[in-house]
Amino acid sequence: MLIAIPLFDRFTALDAVGPYEVLSRLPGAEVVFCGTDARPYRTETKALAITADRMLADIDRCDVLVVPGGYGTRESVHDDVLVGWIGRMHHTTTWTTSVCTGSLLLGAAGLLDGLEATTHWAYYEELAKYGARPTSRRVVEEGKIVTAAGVSAGIDMALTLAARIAGDEVAKAIQLGIEYDPQPPFDAGAPDKANPETLSLLRQLVTQAR
Amino acid sequence: MLIAIPLFDRFTALDAVGPYEVLSRLPGAEVVFCGTDARPYRTETKALAITADRMLADIDRCDVLVVPGGYGTRESVHDDVLVGWIGRMHHTTTWTTSVCTGSLLLGAAGLLDGLEATTHWAYYEELAKYGARPTSRRVVEEGKIVTAAGVSAGIDMALTLAARIAGDEVAKAIQLGIEYDPQPPFDAGAPDKANPETLSLLRQLVTQAR
Repeated sequence: MLIAIPLFDRFTALDAVGPYEVLSRLPGAEVVFCGTDARPYRTETKALAITADRMLADIDRCDVLVVPGGYGTRESVHDDVLVGWIGRMHHTTTWTTSVCTGSLLLGAAGLLDGLEATTHWAYYEELAKYGARPTSRRVVEEGKIVTAAGVSAGIDMALTLAARIAGDEVAKAIQLGIEYDPQPPFDAGAPDKANPETLSLLRQLVTQAR
Repeated sequence: MLIAIPLFDRFTALDAVGPYEVLSRLPGAEVVFCGTDARPYRTETKALAITADRMLADIDRCDVLVVPGGYGTRESVHDDVLVGWIGRMHHTTTWTTSVCTGSLLLGAAGLLDGLEATTHWAYYEELAKYGARPTSRRVVEEGKIVTAAGVSAGIDMALTLAARIAGDEVAKAIQLGIEYDPQPPFDAGAPDKANPETLSLLRQLVTQAR
């Protein structure tokens, strides 16, 4: 079972690594990080680089496609090589998935037209431009297309997918293996739980990061 | 604020990337991935490589130390260069932290003697060998030393730490930024929630992975 995770400049690391950590533990899983070039790709902070071991051009099929998001999607949705590859891969997959603004890339490849889908909560309008019907659900399944909400939602998406692929019991074993018994110190992880001050502070942090 | 995350062969990616994704969003944060050598380090699956941009020898202080775990700790607890560096860094830090079996490395550096600490649930006995008092709490604070449970617990640890460093409101804004509103499809992330079949399945998966 080949699981392909394409990288691009200024991707968000956890979008890719959350699903990797879950799906790589499936029986028979082979994960490949790939990119337009075979080289390290840096996140938006520039502090972290993950190696794309294979070129997109050298991968002509995969069973599971996991497309991460990140600020870099602003440019990568216009990258014909990447977007074209995603469209071609989709014809070969059993599951086509995205995390966070990775769904904008699925949208750019024409895969979400008329479908319910999700993305980071700040990008619903952007997602709608591709003909998708944005929802705030954390994991959205539409046939073989599964989209996840922002960043950390990739872990929940991947566990959902692990259950579909290998059954509930294997998914639970993986959850136990990564000790995913979340206990966030605050209940502030969704916009309907945040107060205006939190949103304003986040805007300041994001402006720094960009 | 310099945040150092040392890598070693066969580390677990999410142990490092969970805290990175939270702490890199702190105002003034500079994250550096480092290693005995400046080169890419591969996880236990060999499918993922993160680049160590700097050599340990070139880093003589940091404000926050985040030590990830992974199967590679079996060897790295005997790596005098890495363990010695962790011990020296601890004298310079405001916070010394670990995720998963990263606490075994803190233990090997002599930092946990007599202290409460945690690790992946399967490694409590191993942790006790270093004089620590293992507990099953997800995030354990002992002065400036903060240890987290297995793999995904690094996200909860880092949010706890973000609040200590920059206040609750900033931590909540980061949580919202990474949309950390966890909704695992199962409630199976801790050993006291798992049935014997799940444990047995996990053992099979782990045997494959090693």
